[in-house]
Amino acid sequence: MALIEKLVVCGVGLVGGSFALALKQAGEVGRVVGIGRTQAALARAVKLGVIDEAGADLASALDGADFVLLSVPVGQTDAVMEALAPHLSANAVLTDAGSTKTDVFAAVYRRLDAHLANVVPSHPIAGTEKSGVDAADAKLFVGKRTVVTPLPENDPAAVEKVKAAWRACGAAVVEMAPQDHDRVFAAVSHLPHLLSFGLVHDLAGRANAELLFSHAASGFRDFTRIAASSPEMWRDICLANRQAIVAELDQYLGELALIRSLLLSDNGDRLELLFQEARQARNKWAEENR
Amino acid sequence: MALIEKLVVCGVGLVGGSFALALKQAGEVGRVVGIGRTQAALARAVKLGVIDEAGADLASALDGADFVLLSVPVGQTDAVMEALAPHLSANAVLTDAGSTKTDVFAAVYRRLDAHLANVVPSHPIAGTEKSGVDAADAKLFVGKRTVVTPLPENDPAAVEKVKAAWRACGAAVVEMAPQDHDRVFAAVSHLPHLLSFGLVHDLAGRANAELLFSHAASGFRDFTRIAASSPEMWRDICLANRQAIVAELDQYLGELALIRSLLLSDNGDRLELLFQEARQARNKWAEENR
Repeated sequence: MALIEKLVVCGVGLVGGSFALALKQAGEVGRVVGIGRTQAALARAVKLGVIDEAGADLASALDGADFVLLSVPVGQTDAVMEALAPHLSANAVLTDAGSTKTDVFAAVYRRLDAHLANVVPSHPIAGTEKSGVDAADAKLFVGKRTVVTPLPENDPAAVEKVKAAWRACGAAVVEMAPQDHDRVFAAVSHLPHLLSFGLVHDLAGRANAELLFSHAASGFRDFTRIAASSPEMWRDICLANRQAIVAELDQYLGELALIRSLLLSDNGDRLELLFQEARQARNKWAEENR
Repeated sequence: MALIEKLVVCGVGLVGGSFALALKQAGEVGRVVGIGRTQAALARAVKLGVIDEAGADLASALDGADFVLLSVPVGQTDAVMEALAPHLSANAVLTDAGSTKTDVFAAVYRRLDAHLANVVPSHPIAGTEKSGVDAADAKLFVGKRTVVTPLPENDPAAVEKVKAAWRACGAAVVEMAPQDHDRVFAAVSHLPHLLSFGLVHDLAGRANAELLFSHAASGFRDFTRIAASSPEMWRDICLANRQAIVAELDQYLGELALIRSLLLSDNGDRLELLFQEARQARNKWAEENR
């Protein structure tokens, strides 16, 4: 028997589409219904075989659904939960795929307080600069982590069902508290995205931007890959997690102040040591995370 | 007839080794002699077929050489030029592969003033985080740019010979003034390297570094690839080009101050616009530089 009988994917983009495809491929889902902002995108998802049908309205889409994935930009979480709430059956398990978690917790307590046993927030760590259902890929989560952040009120069976679904997609599941999650990802994901967006934005605004870009090479390519990420998604992440992001940015500005002072004082030894320590940490991480 | 009869590569690492291999593969070099800091590295280069022999001393290595490539960390340029000068024949053409050019110009006028007609500085834009002769690759420069920054005193035939050598390696040659070169590369290469080194160094120094690194994913991987670059090479680049780098860093700090203020004021519209402009510029660049 499949893990999920009727899956509703709310927001059929890269993540929602990949989740549906992966569960289909694993034989762990019966029927997949998509809900989205535009009928055109849903029709495209049907055509690509990502979903079986486009939900006509929330009530019929959610009727009989035993699993719901919210995969919308995090800024829409609250409104979408509010819209879903009246139509969600008591035994439906719901998770999300948002890159921030404290804001999702707040929305759950605000909008889905009648469903606390079955709402289990999560965050699949499967970043790519691509977006949209055309980028959906059944292998997107394979070998990646998914962080699950259960509520104290969760039914253990609901937590287990959410974890099982991510595992069926090929992900390794880890549990964290939402505040810890948001601080960790501010450091290793949200800040690097801002730094990359910032560099490209800075250079693009120069009078000699064309000359500059014409000499950019492979280091620039890698450093700025994430600057091609979805502006809407990253706007929402920034707003949802701005406290932790500003704290990380301020810590980083301290690092840049150190580097600046080493440059100005011609301190080659300390610069080299800093680069060595960075290289060593980066290589160790890369070794452990092939 | 080959373009070069006897090539001397001074510093047989990634770039010097790749230059030798590429010219050999193109049939444009007769014999390749390597000079380096350690005999062990030179023996390795001979074993790999990158050079034909290790120079016993500068005088014999340079005897009869018609082309010399300096591919040492830029901090050693001055000392190496001083050491080579007494042994360089009048008709030998010399170029370098340094990532900075105003400092190389200064060293040339200081150390090789008797050879100004034939010393043509250059910079192959073929970055990789790897280093050492084992990473040498005959295809390293294929489809990449090499910037040539001629001296006013150069013999046009020497400039042509240097350009022809890089073209034989598969590179597209462009000419620039050294000051323009250093400002452009401070922006598109040196600053991103510092930002990447800085992020890893910042995170590696935290009490919870292990937790942080354990959640780093593909965005972090790309952003920090260049933090695995050679610390010695980057120390030298920073010291050689620190004026332009500090100017770029300060401009970037202004960008980060803008982003910080948009975060603090919850200005989602402006953040999204900034991200959009960055994404558009990044995608345009990537389209034009496949």
